[in-house]
Amino acid sequence: MPIVQVNMLEGRSVAQKRRMIAAVTEALVESLGVPADSVRILIQELNAEHFAVSGVCAHCRDANGEEATEE
Amino acid sequence: MPIVQVNMLEGRSVAQKRRMIAAVTEALVESLGVPADSVRILIQELNAEHFAVSGVCAHCRDANGEEATEE
Amino acid sequence: MPIVQVNMLEGRSVAQKRRMIAAVTEALVESLGVPADSVRILIQELNAEHFAVSGVCAHCRDANGEEATEE
Amino acid sequence: MPIVQVNMLEGRSVAQKRRMIAAVTEALVESLGVPADSVRILIQELNAEHFAVSGVCAHCRDANGEEATEE
Amino acid sequence: MPIVQVNMLEGRSVAQKRRMIAAVTEALVESLGVPADSVRILIQELNAEHFAVSGVCAHCRDANGEEATEE
Amino acid sequence: MPIVQVNMLEGRSVAQKRRMIAAVTEALVESLGVPADSVRILIQELNAEHFAVSGVCAHCRDANGEEATEE
Repeated sequence: MPIVQVNMLEGRSVAQKRRMIAAVTEALVESLGVPADSVRILIQELNAEHFAVSGVCAHCRDANGEEATEE
Repeated sequence: MPIVQVNMLEGRSVAQKRRMIAAVTEALVESLGVPADSVRILIQELNAEHFAVSGVCAHCRDANGEEATEE
Repeated sequence: MPIVQVNMLEGRSVAQKRRMIAAVTEALVESLGVPADSVRILIQELNAEHFAVSGVCAHCRDANGEEATEE
Repeated sequence: MPIVQVNMLEGRSVAQKRRMIAAVTEALVESLGVPADSVRILIQELNAEHFAVSGVCAHCRDANGEEATEE
Repeated sequence: MPIVQVNMLEGRSVAQKRRMIAAVTEALVESLGVPADSVRILIQELNAEHFAVSGVCAHCRDANGEEATEE
Repeated sequence: MPIVQVNMLEGRSVAQKRRMIAAVTEALVESLGVPADSVRILIQELNAEHFAVSGVCAHCRDANGEEATEE
């Protein structure tokens, strides 16, 4: 512990996901004072049909040309 | 909030998933009195080998011709 | 299936949570065409220190007199 | 209930996952005294870029020839 | 990995939860061939108002004298 | 999105949890390039009987005087 699950839209590069993993791990180590090897991160990627705000999926929102405030 | 994760077997059409998203969002708005834009829904689809009841996966159950009471 | 986890801030009454359970179950039955007894709902309540948007917990946001757009 | 989510790296055979499902279900039935048909298991498989310990993903760790203590 | 979350109704004794943890860990070690120290188990207990089947919470079902098939 | 669930042992102060929230949010904003108001963090605290490694709960491990490598 901590064990962290990050849910995010698919489409990021491998390099970007690795930077995210390193950055979140460091944030937990510094703020909680835990050893790095106790931090586990699980990434769950969702496609744009599988995440919705206000009852509208992310894919529909983009298709409608609406301003995307969630990524 | 509320943030809702819906776990279900894969195989539904895009149209059906969109109807589900709209219906669940409306159910939360009406029953909890929250604004629609505070409702987030995440769908996690599982294939039939990855969901089991009574120690038997959904795929095996279907192959055995048993009555499917879970969908 | 579907198995649904609803994460929301604590503070709702038992009656309100029961209405939410009934409404979400009905929404899933109608939109997905599943039998009601296949729907399972798990509620996870979070206190206002345990949910954050923009790096600020819900409790802090309320204390600052900011407009709460999340409930 | 119990409803159990098993997060593990992808790459296991169907046969191995079925043995796992049967074994975990039996473990729950015997230790908790619940009927088998109340036990639900959901498997979430992660690829090696989506699970990290110490800020390093499982794929990177393997590529570096480090000893893998997590599977 | 595997990282396992067990959702169950509250009310079990500490001894019973420890037996469950040991049994599920052993089931994973034997069926997946993973080392024991790679297995992490998280227990989330729910009260009877926070788990529902068929739109009815576990507490209501018990109060109505219905046969409880879920525990 | 991203929506992040942080599972950790209970016992941290409010101040420490707030620092963690701010640090993880900043880590996600910088590594993924998302706006801060798209980041949601949910904290799930577990007591020491509800988290286990190697089939032994965190509470037992501490009571046995073993070296705690997980926090």
